[in-house]
Amino acid sequence: MNLSEHPLHRLFCPRRVAVVGASANLDSLTGRTIKVMKRFGFSGDLFPVNPKYDQVGGYQCYKNLADIPGSADVAVISVKANIVPSVLETCIAKGIPNAVIYSSGFAETGNKKLQEQILSIARSGKIRILGPNCQGLLNLAEKTPLTFTGALLDVDPPKAGHVAFVSQSGAFGFSSFGVGLDHGVNYRYVVTTGNQADVDAVECASYVICDPQVRLLMMYLEGIGDGQRFLQMVKDARERNIAVAVLKAGRSPISQKAAQSHTAALTGDEAVWDAIFDQYGIIPMEDMDDITGIGQMFGARQRATGDRVAILTTSGGAGIVMADSLTDLKIQVPELSADTQKKMAENIPSFGSPRNPVDMTIQVSETPEKFQQVLKTAMDDPDVHMVVTALSMVIGKAGDVMADELIRNYQTAEKPQAVVWMIDQAHGGSFIQRLKDAGIPIFQSFRQCARSLRAMVNWHQLRALSKDEPVTGTPILQNYPPLMSEYDAKCLLSKYGIPVTREALCTNMEEAFDAADDIGFPLVLKGMSGKIMHKTEADVVRLDIRTLEELRQDFKKVRTNMQAQVADADIQGFLVGEMVKGGMECIVGIKRDPVFGPVVAVGLGGIYVEVLGDVSLRHAPVDEAEALRMIQELKGFGFLSGARGQKRKDTAALARIVSQVSKLACVEPDLLELDINPVFVMPEGQGAVAADALIVRNGQSHNH
Amino acid sequence: MNLSEHPLHRLFCPRRVAVVGASANLDSLTGRTIKVMKRFGFSGDLFPVNPKYDQVGGYQCYKNLADIPGSADVAVISVKANIVPSVLETCIAKGIPNAVIYSSGFAETGNKKLQEQILSIARSGKIRILGPNCQGLLNLAEKTPLTFTGALLDVDPPKAGHVAFVSQSGAFGFSSFGVGLDHGVNYRYVVTTGNQADVDAVECASYVICDPQVRLLMMYLEGIGDGQRFLQMVKDARERNIAVAVLKAGRSPISQKAAQSHTAALTGDEAVWDAIFDQYGIIPMEDMDDITGIGQMFGARQRATGDRVAILTTSGGAGIVMADSLTDLKIQVPELSADTQKKMAENIPSFGSPRNPVDMTIQVSETPEKFQQVLKTAMDDPDVHMVVTALSMVIGKAGDVMADELIRNYQTAEKPQAVVWMIDQAHGGSFIQRLKDAGIPIFQSFRQCARSLRAMVNWHQLRALSKDEPVTGTPILQNYPPLMSEYDAKCLLSKYGIPVTREALCTNMEEAFDAADDIGFPLVLKGMSGKIMHKTEADVVRLDIRTLEELRQDFKKVRTNMQAQVADADIQGFLVGEMVKGGMECIVGIKRDPVFGPVVAVGLGGIYVEVLGDVSLRHAPVDEAEALRMIQELKGFGFLSGARGQKRKDTAALARIVSQVSKLACVEPDLLELDINPVFVMPEGQGAVAADALIVRNGQSHNH
Repeated sequence: MNLSEHPLHRLFCPRRVAVVGASANLDSLTGRTIKVMKRFGFSGDLFPVNPKYDQVGGYQCYKNLADIPGSADVAVISVKANIVPSVLETCIAKGIPNAVIYSSGFAETGNKKLQEQILSIARSGKIRILGPNCQGLLNLAEKTPLTFTGALLDVDPPKAGHVAFVSQSGAFGFSSFGVGLDHGVNYRYVVTTGNQADVDAVECASYVICDPQVRLLMMYLEGIGDGQRFLQMVKDARERNIAVAVLKAGRSPISQKAAQSHTAALTGDEAVWDAIFDQYGIIPMEDMDDITGIGQMFGARQRATGDRVAILTTSGGAGIVMADSLTDLKIQVPELSADTQKKMAENIPSFGSPRNPVDMTIQVSETPEKFQQVLKTAMDDPDVHMVVTALSMVIGKAGDVMADELIRNYQTAEKPQAVVWMIDQAHGGSFIQRLKDAGIPIFQSFRQCARSLRAMVNWHQLRALSKDEPVTGTPILQNYPPLMSEYDAKCLLSKYGIPVTREALCTNMEEAFDAADDIGFPLVLKGMSGKIMHKTEADVVRLDIRTLEELRQDFKKVRTNMQAQVADADIQGFLVGEMVKGGMECIVGIKRDPVFGPVVAVGLGGIYVEVLGDVSLRHAPVDEAEALRMIQELKGFGFLSGARGQKRKDTAALARIVSQVSKLACVEPDLLELDINPVFVMPEGQGAVAADALIVRNGQSHNH
Repeated sequence: MNLSEHPLHRLFCPRRVAVVGASANLDSLTGRTIKVMKRFGFSGDLFPVNPKYDQVGGYQCYKNLADIPGSADVAVISVKANIVPSVLETCIAKGIPNAVIYSSGFAETGNKKLQEQILSIARSGKIRILGPNCQGLLNLAEKTPLTFTGALLDVDPPKAGHVAFVSQSGAFGFSSFGVGLDHGVNYRYVVTTGNQADVDAVECASYVICDPQVRLLMMYLEGIGDGQRFLQMVKDARERNIAVAVLKAGRSPISQKAAQSHTAALTGDEAVWDAIFDQYGIIPMEDMDDITGIGQMFGARQRATGDRVAILTTSGGAGIVMADSLTDLKIQVPELSADTQKKMAENIPSFGSPRNPVDMTIQVSETPEKFQQVLKTAMDDPDVHMVVTALSMVIGKAGDVMADELIRNYQTAEKPQAVVWMIDQAHGGSFIQRLKDAGIPIFQSFRQCARSLRAMVNWHQLRALSKDEPVTGTPILQNYPPLMSEYDAKCLLSKYGIPVTREALCTNMEEAFDAADDIGFPLVLKGMSGKIMHKTEADVVRLDIRTLEELRQDFKKVRTNMQAQVADADIQGFLVGEMVKGGMECIVGIKRDPVFGPVVAVGLGGIYVEVLGDVSLRHAPVDEAEALRMIQELKGFGFLSGARGQKRKDTAALARIVSQVSKLACVEPDLLELDINPVFVMPEGQGAVAADALIVRNGQSHNH
């Protein structure tokens, strides 16, 4: 979609803007929009509206919104909350299709009714609302700051760059803008969505990613309403080669509580968010440092094609600490090839090191042509994917020379570059400003630089992944009883091609004996009823039955126990099944996340999941290759992969089950929860088999 | 010890300084010392020495060091490397007791011989050397910058504060100084030790911690020669209530390689360093950000007395992200008490939140007396140990008001405070500068703030630990054969009170049968020889022997296998021992670290150590309480503590063994390596027992 085709285009690119409640005090919250629109050079028409004034900021001021000549694209509203409904009515009358509502006093203060009222007015008149309780938006490409943030007051408008920031929190959004700008982030859009009565962060994101100048979308989210719409936007961004980085606020119970009073959106399960980040290549951000680091790195034109970094340094110590920071994050700092080292050695003093980190020593700053050669050698080495220059206290003319060479090189470079310059403001401020102005990612923190490069590597590695195929199929869950027994659950699993233990549902002892003949000892016997969820606690399970006589006694006992607990009509029967031995116990499950929908889990079973908390999660569906990666990510993967001379287990078969289960969850919208526990994973080549399963359906409340 | 009693006192506080090789170009590397000594207001006598000049920087210049009137406390030497020996000879002749050698061209370029030569001259004349290849030192309290770093050029001397930085790397040390100063770190000393031919970083540290004004010692180390001396210094610092923070560079193989070409000191095992950091309460630093964050936090007067933080914020979003950053690091952000919330509520708008984070909303900035009350309420709450104020884009007069209140409050506060202010330089630079000048730790990064507070909490928690008692005892290892068998090793363990399996060393079958009578079946049989280290591979072990007949057959087979591999004289005998069942296999071991000496390890045995890499390390000795903490830190601790209905294991007995083993290692200086594998840890109350043990002695090379 082109920008101009997007439904929010007139909101982001208005030509005529009314500012309702504009104060003639241009420094006050209600006056600032006029002030910054003027200073930023907004070229459209501006209509201040306030009964108190004839003029505001040099523009004619109107007593009432109804009085402005013709219509407008956007009404910016900063009047008291209780007056907002009548302003919106006027918008409808005037045909103004968009409102940016700064006013607070709606859902965020508990006044949900007023918020519903303005939403309903807006819907009736097909008006789109940004806010209420937001700080508006900034579109630098169009010189349009529809915002009252202090961050734009009395400063020159920055050049429009390549980074869009969409933030639920107004204060956080524009504070990050101000700080990010200082650190060299080249913003293009900042949008704050506040209470999100109508337009939300995801919709705003879907607009800015239509801009071909955008390279990075950053978001501050406390929660989202519709996970699928969010993920679709992330996929659309990726197709346009735009990286998406998200600061998901509210990771702890206390901060979730704070977030909930802030916004109505669901915060979702943190472990699920983590899985979503990994799976969809969303760059996680936690901090202002990530905003500035990721913002610089992905605001630049270059993208990584691998994870091998060359470090060029003027200080042995800085090179070592940089290498530590990179290797801490599993980024490679390889010894350079003999050929490259030879070329390096020609341009560095004999007491330097050409290996990597390349210690150019401080002397290089006195010979710019040599630094140019060192940089070029690093950039030309096909085994080097990114270049970090780590500079110490290089001052005066030498600093200027280093900055010159870095900028010259950067302008034509195709590989990502970053600079860490350990220098104070008095001695280095001007060099650093020059590098920022040129768009070179520049840091004072080795770790922050490494984190940003790590994000770059992740982006590259994920881009190489295959696309997911849509899952199709017809739901069959409705064919089963509302309260499903283990037997029912395993029947369903079988229909989806998931191997289950060989077994027979028997109604009497004779059938049980016949089943024993078919299956062969040792056997398992379980009483089946949709009303008994916890069979072991109900004492209706017998394991490792070895003879007909044992089966006879166990059958009697289990039947008695069943009859003591549920009505005869609720006894589905008695499951006689094979006793599986020699496998590793694992668990495979589905949970339906309120934000993202079905999530598939795999882990080691039994004591392992309890002690190690060792579970891999993914948003469903996953193919077998991805399922295998889930298994390989388990801390206890070694227990499956044949550590210490044990037999290697059939992880491929386990991966097939995980993938099938994930697809099942996509086909069956009413499946709320599925636990296969245990899955016995047999030695390699011998498969894996579901030995017990529990299904919870939508709308059904099992008390378990 | 007082500063003035320390052997390095005249080096750090000279009254008379000769600068040998001083250039009249005061901006050149060899001219800068004169320039900065003058600018910083050094009040002693300065003697430039250079045959080319009559005057340098307004001081009379001498042709030769021998020509200066009388003696000096320090000679700063920046001449070419090959001239340094003769300058040192002159120092001896003139009675100058200290030399700071900037010159490079010694061990760092491979010229170890020249370095040995200057050291030998210095030793002969009792001269102490800082360097060579260092950037000197800065003593702000004495207005003494004996350094050529560009970081001090053309800037006003900062006030002497409370932070000492000792760095092996000159460039890293003074770059960190410059950057740290910008971030509000109040330095007192910066010392760079370079090649450390004589004076090393630990000795410099031992000097600065004698200064009662020092609150924090930061170190950049690539390695250290003598771990015990380092740890003694750390303990001395702790007794003086001085925190020690270390950036240990060279954590990865590639950076270790780079570090080794830098310095001769051993880098040591990274896992051991991590254990040492934990155990001795050394604050680990990885990055410039840690230097600035820890530097600010511990440069302040206040120390934490607990881990509960109150967050005061003007932005809901900032409060949430701050709470996330703190809880990520397991710092508590508790809901405030009803009483405190009531007081908070009186001073914040109704649409704020008094819970924690305390959302004061931006309105508070317009009512300073209310902010004052909120701050006071947080400081007065006995359940709050630290206070973080997280501010968004508070600008103009409001920003000044907030800064005023923060500074006013800080000056009398007894609890640590920190401020995160998300604001750009143009709008907030002046407020932030004021906070820095007042000594308030101020951040733009939530995570960095949280890391610094975490360090503060760790410092508090470790200070509460008990002191270690010295281990005494007489070594007995020399009473055993040089190549020790399992039997020998277990005899030694027994002597140290460590329970071993019941067993008897037999020389013939009859003795083996008698042992079987005593011990009872099932039994284990192992061939013993100091020459056979890997008994299983040598096929001289039989497990689970159940009858006399089995014992007879196994004995014959083992004897045959022994005779096939070692001479009869090397067969020590045949160990008949109890077969232990029902315990959890663990491992307990000792390694002698080249830097720190004996290190004790405990972990789960068998497949667990292989898959989970699950081992706890400590510097020996440890008492039983500390040993229990080691066990509790194991990822798989749940396997021992009775997860999922399993029997709880006798971890107290395991802890006793760990503690005893650690003491054994301290008593036996020749014990190089000890592996007890497995230790069977029985159900609670039933003890733990060493079932196999291997000892490697100093100077002995077992090829295993």
